[in-house]
Amino acid sequence: MAQKNAPDLMERIVSLCKRRGFVFQSSDIYGGFSSCYDYGPLGVELKRNVKDAWWRSMVVGRDDIVGLDSAIIQHPDVWKSSGHLAGFHDLMVDCKECKGRFRHDHLEDENVCPNCGAQGSFTEPRAFNLMFKTFAGPVEDTAHTVFLRPETAQGIFTNFLNVVNSSRVKPPFGIAQIGKSFRNEITPGNFVFRTREFEQMEMEFFIPPDEGDKWYDYWIQERFDWYVKFGVRPDKLRKRAHDDDELAHYSTGCTDVEYEFPFGWSELEGIAKRGCFDLTQHGEGSGKDLSFFDEATKTRYIPHVVEPAAGCDRAAMTFLVDAYEEEAIPNEKTGKDDIRTVLRFHPSIAPVTVAVFPLVKKEGMPDRAREISAALQDVGLRTFYDEKGAIGRRYRRQDEVGTPWCVTIDGDTLSDGTVTVRDRDTMQQERVSADEIAANLKQRVADWKRT
Amino acid sequence: MAQKNAPDLMERIVSLCKRRGFVFQSSDIYGGFSSCYDYGPLGVELKRNVKDAWWRSMVVGRDDIVGLDSAIIQHPDVWKSSGHLAGFHDLMVDCKECKGRFRHDHLEDENVCPNCGAQGSFTEPRAFNLMFKTFAGPVEDTAHTVFLRPETAQGIFTNFLNVVNSSRVKPPFGIAQIGKSFRNEITPGNFVFRTREFEQMEMEFFIPPDEGDKWYDYWIQERFDWYVKFGVRPDKLRKRAHDDDELAHYSTGCTDVEYEFPFGWSELEGIAKRGCFDLTQHGEGSGKDLSFFDEATKTRYIPHVVEPAAGCDRAAMTFLVDAYEEEAIPNEKTGKDDIRTVLRFHPSIAPVTVAVFPLVKKEGMPDRAREISAALQDVGLRTFYDEKGAIGRRYRRQDEVGTPWCVTIDGDTLSDGTVTVRDRDTMQQERVSADEIAANLKQRVADWKRT
Repeated sequence: MAQKNAPDLMERIVSLCKRRGFVFQSSDIYGGFSSCYDYGPLGVELKRNVKDAWWRSMVVGRDDIVGLDSAIIQHPDVWKSSGHLAGFHDLMVDCKECKGRFRHDHLEDENVCPNCGAQGSFTEPRAFNLMFKTFAGPVEDTAHTVFLRPETAQGIFTNFLNVVNSSRVKPPFGIAQIGKSFRNEITPGNFVFRTREFEQMEMEFFIPPDEGDKWYDYWIQERFDWYVKFGVRPDKLRKRAHDDDELAHYSTGCTDVEYEFPFGWSELEGIAKRGCFDLTQHGEGSGKDLSFFDEATKTRYIPHVVEPAAGCDRAAMTFLVDAYEEEAIPNEKTGKDDIRTVLRFHPSIAPVTVAVFPLVKKEGMPDRAREISAALQDVGLRTFYDEKGAIGRRYRRQDEVGTPWCVTIDGDTLSDGTVTVRDRDTMQQERVSADEIAANLKQRVADWKRT
Repeated sequence: MAQKNAPDLMERIVSLCKRRGFVFQSSDIYGGFSSCYDYGPLGVELKRNVKDAWWRSMVVGRDDIVGLDSAIIQHPDVWKSSGHLAGFHDLMVDCKECKGRFRHDHLEDENVCPNCGAQGSFTEPRAFNLMFKTFAGPVEDTAHTVFLRPETAQGIFTNFLNVVNSSRVKPPFGIAQIGKSFRNEITPGNFVFRTREFEQMEMEFFIPPDEGDKWYDYWIQERFDWYVKFGVRPDKLRKRAHDDDELAHYSTGCTDVEYEFPFGWSELEGIAKRGCFDLTQHGEGSGKDLSFFDEATKTRYIPHVVEPAAGCDRAAMTFLVDAYEEEAIPNEKTGKDDIRTVLRFHPSIAPVTVAVFPLVKKEGMPDRAREISAALQDVGLRTFYDEKGAIGRRYRRQDEVGTPWCVTIDGDTLSDGTVTVRDRDTMQQERVSADEIAANLKQRVADWKRT
């Protein structure tokens, strides 16, 4: 296998993302817009698969978790109660000479401006809130100031009562949500890993007060295992428990699932014990009783919360970065090695599961290929049809975007009813009866293992 | 069938939405927030199904359309080129007496304030831009003013070049997107039908300049049929072509698909001929060449566009409103009619496809029910498990949320291996072998017709 060169590995991945339609710089034709990204035709399918995998694991496949989709713009008092209005900020300093503004904790020297070099020119540090604010209704004054949510979690807490009253749930149970959040980060960066607009996958698990440790341990393991289940190599993942001085004042424990990116270990998701802080705050802020009465034990309590909070964009890019490999393939004609770029996606994560090719654009092969493609779609496989170019090049193009299998329809298909199945990981080809191709591929999906 | 009473029908539907967890007022514990809504456990599944149905029809099931997911916050020049910065506004007047602000075109009398009754107290009408604005980066000045997108379409036009360069597409082809948009509407209303934050399902179909009429007709029919395919009664739908004075200056035709809501006929989606306006504008604004060179005909042109633009929230509520029925069922005990509330959802749209019940919570029935539920999930059916309450009440609870079938595990299941399948629409019950239940239900999904 070709040596991965860490320093420019990310550049090659970012380049692949643009070239093949995974991720584009947002507003690209206008020179781009600071740390904003758009997902292209393959990227949007990748992200859909990540969200689907999370939703199936967290909601559809469980009896004890329900879903929610709350609004981005909420009543301003939500952020007063949650503590975001008073406490969600960075400390900033201004340079009186050049008017530049900087994060206080990022200054290498507290007395020298990194922009103009002026000494002792900084103002006192001031709090800069990270919530985007805007104005709802026709008047721009403080009475109508609203915020773009900085996390999806608060929409879950404010709906706790509505969910309990409308659904057959009682602790331990969870409410899960996927959606966009916004943070006016001063220093976004590292491709889609830290952006001002991002998509979260959060779940609040409501429990009796004495079950915090049990569910904390459970969810740390469950979430770690989720990445492994969908193909991420376990040796690139680790759990990191926060030190006491990293914890929010109300939290008694937080553990990150981290991945070793080319730019170092970085957080994928955090699993936090939030105690009863959130429901208590919203109960006090709203004047509503957010306690739960347990009929079985005849006790009333404010549920405690364990929260696994994942980033959808980070998860998508983790699957992509982890899947990326460059492989040396001997070329007999040139006597040198060719480099094969391949994304070893799990079949459930890959944007396309099966590419379907007619060998040539004649003799009825395109029609037969489209029939087979439709039959594969009917059993839930994501297909891509391509009839252009040499067959070897078509295989390599699919390797580069992580399609696990290609099915080729050729002259023999029309006479003996078999097609060729070509495997992305082994590059081996096998002839399979067209009648059995759907079942054959479904079995390959079930049997797939990372090589 | 019980008489539908139009005036309070919407109230009863809104009440059902809250009681059963479809839609809640946003920030409900804080007294709600003007025309913002949150989707509860059943609502989020309904909306997911609507989006999935659209994506399958528009992207996955077609070779000529690809997907995209662009950012909400984009380069401000995007809105300059698109015309939104200069032209996307309502005309407003202020009352000098009471300081109230009103939409000029909504005033019943141009000289009388509807709030304080003052006469001739209005200012001259002023343009009020409907885009939400906010500030990116740490300084609140005009240099950093950005907007929340008022439509997803522009993110498609700005990515035209990236998609053409990364994907094997050529006109006629489409780019589809689902995502949130924001409009600072002065008068939102009618439940989730007009809100400041909403989700769109838009597709831009790029075509040679002389194919506008052909594709316009095609997409009007295709989009009308989509609602019918997923269960909406055709007699409640109509196509309405815009009059010339309703059209944007660049548009040569627009047709709405409308539904007859309890509050009157209202737009579900618009299919518009946009000419080459958008790509021309962005080509000029960005200085990039957004024309397409057709190798076959050796001609270069700026593609024209036909756009079907649907509202996801409106579509979800259309499916719900249209599915809503109240049925009189004779009750032999009381001698009077009971009212059965039922949502006659299409099986692909229903939040739950199959509810699975153990008749009683003993004799191994719950375990067997969970096994069967898991087997049904394996073949892609959305299941819900419930073991609480009398079986008749459990059936009625599922009718009210539109679950097409209930499967009950009873004493006979454990001896002869059969289960009861109960049909939502006919209320008929049938015994089916547990071994065949998955295939039986899959067939029922395929055969389902609106009664």
